[in-house]
Amino acid sequence: MPTDRPQPAFVLLRPQMGENIGAAARAMWNFGLDRMRLVAPRDGWPNPSAVALASGAGRLLDEAQLFDTTEAAISDTTFVYATTARPRELTKPVMTPEAAMSDAAARVARGEKVAVMFGPERAGMENADIAAASAIVSVPVNPDFPSLNLAQCVLLLGYEWRRATSQTAPVRLKGQRTELAERLEVERLGDHYEERLAEAGFFFPEHKAEGMRLNLRNLWSRMPLTRADVQMLHGILRQMVRWKERG
Amino acid sequence: MPTDRPQPAFVLLRPQMGENIGAAARAMWNFGLDRMRLVAPRDGWPNPSAVALASGAGRLLDEAQLFDTTEAAISDTTFVYATTARPRELTKPVMTPEAAMSDAAARVARGEKVAVMFGPERAGMENADIAAASAIVSVPVNPDFPSLNLAQCVLLLGYEWRRATSQTAPVRLKGQRTELAERLEVERLGDHYEERLAEAGFFFPEHKAEGMRLNLRNLWSRMPLTRADVQMLHGILRQMVRWKERG
Repeated sequence: MPTDRPQPAFVLLRPQMGENIGAAARAMWNFGLDRMRLVAPRDGWPNPSAVALASGAGRLLDEAQLFDTTEAAISDTTFVYATTARPRELTKPVMTPEAAMSDAAARVARGEKVAVMFGPERAGMENADIAAASAIVSVPVNPDFPSLNLAQCVLLLGYEWRRATSQTAPVRLKGQRTELAERLEVERLGDHYEERLAEAGFFFPEHKAEGMRLNLRNLWSRMPLTRADVQMLHGILRQMVRWKERG
Repeated sequence: MPTDRPQPAFVLLRPQMGENIGAAARAMWNFGLDRMRLVAPRDGWPNPSAVALASGAGRLLDEAQLFDTTEAAISDTTFVYATTARPRELTKPVMTPEAAMSDAAARVARGEKVAVMFGPERAGMENADIAAASAIVSVPVNPDFPSLNLAQCVLLLGYEWRRATSQTAPVRLKGQRTELAERLEVERLGDHYEERLAEAGFFFPEHKAEGMRLNLRNLWSRMPLTRADVQMLHGILRQMVRWKERG
């Protein structure tokens, strides 16, 4: 059974190699997409080579919908994106993968049905396929080496779909004890070091002492210290003092 | 010769299959990256299987730098990103690919040297590798199917690097005659249709006429019409009038 979550259908137009269909299924499922549509696969359907490559995502192949024509495959959708490396003469909006999947997410959230079409290996899409699309998606590849394969193209669009629909913080702190230290804790850490280091004669010569104290305070305060870090830094200093006191 | 453009080194740690090294080279060059570093590839170096898979990006393999250890491979860098599907117990910033490559672009622009590390197939990175990194990059995959392969992971980071460093408009209009119509042209188009349709008795019955005129004006103005579109729409109407006048 497909997942419940509304999402775009990914439509492979006249794919040639079964292996590429299997790899495309894996790439879709990597990003939680499981609505595959196939238009006239060259080697018929089902295809054992596709199954062999899809390990872990074989369900997508079992549930893939088969169509004879591009028109039939997209007939129930309201907006269709055509991914192509070679934009044609046709006047049509050209979107980055990010803009396209962000647009798709907004449409799907409003209850629209959308599809993303991928042309056959090598040959690419025919002009009739492009003409049926609402917009073109163009991946910003190196113009000297624009050779993305089918599964890679599916991967990038799936990645952008997931980015557009998931709430992932761009940067977070991960680990066992990740609670950041409060400023008071950092200040006390600074006090601790300053006191002991003063006792230890660190701030010398006298006319440089103030600058040295300032630099040390600044060191602690600009570090993204966790509570665990602060405790460890206290522990280090205590140990050094103990070591010294032991003589 | 590598390209001049400053960029991150992509470091493959103890890669196993030559094919995957070749596919990674292709994925890098797809997005204009050509600084590959290899740490202790399992099957030695050079590797004919890598060359066979790298078609078009073989130069990256010829120029790849070989190291015995992770430490040696990153010794000349100031900031290192570790891509891993399994964040560990180590406290470390975890970034999305987008945030990481945006950060990398800012650092490279300031003259820093940065590296992105990729663990070996299956085994993944060792904790010692992660500990040597400045930050972790985690791709937001489907938790039920997080199995990205090496070249796919390289592809996504390369894609984000290119996004972070290129000025691609998210949506643009592509085609032969893409100049958008100015508002005056759209207004004249509306006039033309309104006049002819009024002559044709379109705005009927009388009490609905105003609403119908408004809807028609609105239709033209919310369409992203090019100058060519406007000319064509004028032409259509003129032709209908001519046809009518011919009787």
